[in-house]
Amino acid sequence: MSALQPQDPDWEAKLRESFARQRIMTTLGTELTRVEPGLVEIACDFQEGLAQQHGFFHAGVTSTLMDSAGGYAAFSLFPAGSAVLTVEFKINLLAPAAGSRLVARGRVFRPGRTLTVCDIEGYVLGEAGEKICAKMQQTCMRVDAGAGLAAG
Amino acid sequence: MSALQPQDPDWEAKLRESFARQRIMTTLGTELTRVEPGLVEIACDFQEGLAQQHGFFHAGVTSTLMDSAGGYAAFSLFPAGSAVLTVEFKINLLAPAAGSRLVARGRVFRPGRTLTVCDIEGYVLGEAGEKICAKMQQTCMRVDAGAGLAAG
Amino acid sequence: MSALQPQDPDWEAKLRESFARQRIMTTLGTELTRVEPGLVEIACDFQEGLAQQHGFFHAGVTSTLMDSAGGYAAFSLFPAGSAVLTVEFKINLLAPAAGSRLVARGRVFRPGRTLTVCDIEGYVLGEAGEKICAKMQQTCMRVDAGAGLAAG
Amino acid sequence: MSALQPQDPDWEAKLRESFARQRIMTTLGTELTRVEPGLVEIACDFQEGLAQQHGFFHAGVTSTLMDSAGGYAAFSLFPAGSAVLTVEFKINLLAPAAGSRLVARGRVFRPGRTLTVCDIEGYVLGEAGEKICAKMQQTCMRVDAGAGLAAG
Repeated sequence: MSALQPQDPDWEAKLRESFARQRIMTTLGTELTRVEPGLVEIACDFQEGLAQQHGFFHAGVTSTLMDSAGGYAAFSLFPAGSAVLTVEFKINLLAPAAGSRLVARGRVFRPGRTLTVCDIEGYVLGEAGEKICAKMQQTCMRVDAGAGLAAG
Repeated sequence: MSALQPQDPDWEAKLRESFARQRIMTTLGTELTRVEPGLVEIACDFQEGLAQQHGFFHAGVTSTLMDSAGGYAAFSLFPAGSAVLTVEFKINLLAPAAGSRLVARGRVFRPGRTLTVCDIEGYVLGEAGEKICAKMQQTCMRVDAGAGLAAG
Repeated sequence: MSALQPQDPDWEAKLRESFARQRIMTTLGTELTRVEPGLVEIACDFQEGLAQQHGFFHAGVTSTLMDSAGGYAAFSLFPAGSAVLTVEFKINLLAPAAGSRLVARGRVFRPGRTLTVCDIEGYVLGEAGEKICAKMQQTCMRVDAGAGLAAG
Repeated sequence: MSALQPQDPDWEAKLRESFARQRIMTTLGTELTRVEPGLVEIACDFQEGLAQQHGFFHAGVTSTLMDSAGGYAAFSLFPAGSAVLTVEFKINLLAPAAGSRLVARGRVFRPGRTLTVCDIEGYVLGEAGEKICAKMQQTCMRVDAGAGLAAG
């Protein structure tokens, strides 16, 4: 795999600033817990308002965090003046997301000039420690920031 | 395609009751707007708390509504004593979800004894009327309700 | 959906010429059975050399025909000087592909300047007539023909 | 991840015997190059008859090898009396498959009683050594061998 070198020296500040503007992330109570070139982790604690009908994290919450973790991992490697779009993703839900905290860890698998492919894993923290609950393969697109498009 | 006949006479009440227990649906402000055998529609109005960084519906919100619309479309055809699990889904984000309302329309494409495949479309309502913004292909699994597993 | 208008008056000749150069299509014994703007159908008869271990069409054969049907459906709408690349696809295998003939029918679902999303269905012809055996959602990319890249 | 322990002492002989019955594998000139519990590698040399219109391996050949590599990786962990079905897969084509040999490496990511999720990578061997050309995420299903269903 290619080395994952940021191309914009200001990449981390831009990424954190973009994340802060995603209002859904506040609604879900998420935080950025790890930010490295090509790797972004987003997590949130369980609360009733995130549950499906049996009291676990809803799959939509899992996919929201994972999609954003992948999108920002891709964004971290883009040149200045870029925005990121999710073209598509595919997610397998491997186990019920039953736990006190949900963690989405996104990595760039294959960076590209236009398209970047990411690999994202979802974990729940429960009594038995960290348990994988989902796996996502995602395609992101670099667009010019002026195009008015948006991550995730 | 097979005829889409409900197998449980009580299917609609069960479906609405399960939806009502999905707390995330309240958090996002969603409602069931159409319920037929093999077809379920879920919608929500735009609010700031559902936005990504440019003020459109976040892709995670779109995928949450679409995943649930597909899951419940599958569930509508299950025999009594069943629960539904999303095995996996794949979503293409076709256009920015910029509009005042988001609608997810899920249809059963291929019902099965264990696995059911659904086709789900996402629309935003804007000034120019209804515009498609996403397309999802999803695999759901029937499990015994006693197994403690959960839709979406 | 947008109207599916070809942009290159020479689209059909180009498409048939490109198909003729795909040597794998000869290896598998396929033929172009329907060519319209935004819709391409490819079919092949069963032969032992296309089988998996139980004597049905191998899923790889099904996905090869479906990928090409989608790629050429996209290609049919591209402007002159373009080539088509498959970015990714997702396929559900709905039923064993047991029959005397396999048909892949690809349609453009959402044309775009750079990315085009296609919907492809696979059918087998058996004693009971045409039966659906697979469903694919695919993302194709338009590139300049000079870039040296290739359909599906 | 769970330990990848075979449950059937006869797993390897069964796997090789099933592979030998996949006639498409002979048509494409493939061979099993690595067989371990939860990991299967399938490769083939380039020949004109496997090409797309620019003379590289056709994406359908890549997906055929990768689908089988994943299916057999899953099968290697199944109990006696089982067969394997591909439920669905999603593949990203990362680079043109230009090279003298194609290698598909399938690994079980998450084994399960009914459903198993695999991670498969595709490589081409060219002048610059091994280069990744595709990434697949696949869902396989265990069925009773008597059910008459078939791998990949």
